[in-house]
Amino acid sequence: MRYTSHTTSGDGTTERDLDHDGVPGVLWTPAGTVTGLVLSAHGGGQHKRAPGVVARAHHCAAAGLAVLTLDTPGHGDRPRTAQDDHFATEIRARLTTGQDAGALIAEYNALLAAQAVPEWRSALDVLTGTLGIGENVGFWGLSLGSAVGIPLAAAEPRIRTAVFGLLGATADLTRAAAATTATVRFLLQCDDQLVPRDAALALFDAFTTRRKTLHANPGGHGEVPRHELDDAVGFLAAG
Amino acid sequence: MRYTSHTTSGDGTTERDLDHDGVPGVLWTPAGTVTGLVLSAHGGGQHKRAPGVVARAHHCAAAGLAVLTLDTPGHGDRPRTAQDDHFATEIRARLTTGQDAGALIAEYNALLAAQAVPEWRSALDVLTGTLGIGENVGFWGLSLGSAVGIPLAAAEPRIRTAVFGLLGATADLTRAAAATTATVRFLLQCDDQLVPRDAALALFDAFTTRRKTLHANPGGHGEVPRHELDDAVGFLAAG
Repeated sequence: MRYTSHTTSGDGTTERDLDHDGVPGVLWTPAGTVTGLVLSAHGGGQHKRAPGVVARAHHCAAAGLAVLTLDTPGHGDRPRTAQDDHFATEIRARLTTGQDAGALIAEYNALLAAQAVPEWRSALDVLTGTLGIGENVGFWGLSLGSAVGIPLAAAEPRIRTAVFGLLGATADLTRAAAATTATVRFLLQCDDQLVPRDAALALFDAFTTRRKTLHANPGGHGEVPRHELDDAVGFLAAG
Repeated sequence: MRYTSHTTSGDGTTERDLDHDGVPGVLWTPAGTVTGLVLSAHGGGQHKRAPGVVARAHHCAAAGLAVLTLDTPGHGDRPRTAQDDHFATEIRARLTTGQDAGALIAEYNALLAAQAVPEWRSALDVLTGTLGIGENVGFWGLSLGSAVGIPLAAAEPRIRTAVFGLLGATADLTRAAAATTATVRFLLQCDDQLVPRDAALALFDAFTTRRKTLHANPGGHGEVPRHELDDAVGFLAAG
């Protein structure tokens, strides 16, 4: 992991751009003692410096948590392949013509996750060796972020707490959810135009741990209320 | 409202037995400044001093909230009518023989609520005049407590926050939920043996306010996890 820039903001949070084996990312570390690490994955079509990702990072840092984010394959500063362009075009076409894009998004998400999971795991190896974060490792990613995070958590028992949601069940995700040992906070939006409620409930049900809670709020896919995001920071900080 | 006893516990919380126009109840007040009032209604078959009601009261008092609870008609120290005995016998018979008691419980709940709502409203009139609680009035009641609380909140805009749940939609409750202006926290148990999930989701959907959140956890009707109850105290204290 190679750090390419280093800035400190007014609240004392240090922000480093980084390159991890060719994957661009950002690491935020709090001013004081680091009490844990959050792996923060962005949503579909977003990137490591999307406004929501940056806001979440500063909020976590204020609670003593370091935050790592990586650009997902085909997103942000990473090259886009012909396959990425194909899926992006097809998904956009279906959404703009009012067709159901769910199956296509799920297929693309699974391809991206297969590539992203080993990237996150090796980045976690590096950071647990250097940050002194102890055992408090959390994950936060919704929508595409959960499509990456659920198989990641299934493969990675170091992840103790996870904020997932805005995603429906598939056969692969159901299997991964059943293998996840983390304590899960699952967010559902009641008026989600991309994820049918029954599909989201089925994915929540697929987690076999009893340490799981679903929070449902009014609003569309991108309208998770501020109080829910604030609360998720506290959930991750509590470890 | 006539106070019949007065004790102060080790944590400074004062507890008063009371009689309000023939309805027995308990008022808990915190040691320091009172920052709000919670109307706390017990569940079916329980009473004003059920262990969960008492624990909740002390927890709220520690957060600065006064707590009023009343015995629901046919419960606790109140007389049981022939009608109460009829419903209790029939509901028990259906549950022990594995039949669906949902419609019968809903019918009984509605009868009890019609009697209980004016009792709560007149008790609130008395306490808002004496406690100096300002505008922070909350309600906490699950199952039968929600069957009373939802029509109460619909009739009583002084209730600003409400913890409801463990209850399914009926036509009456749906109408009452639509008329409720309070900010709602709705609790659902994923393995509730008395309330089908779809019925609980339908009742949550019936609240027209956008200031509502549903929290779902694993476990049966009586197994709301401790962290969820702790969190509800914070929700009510925040007003």
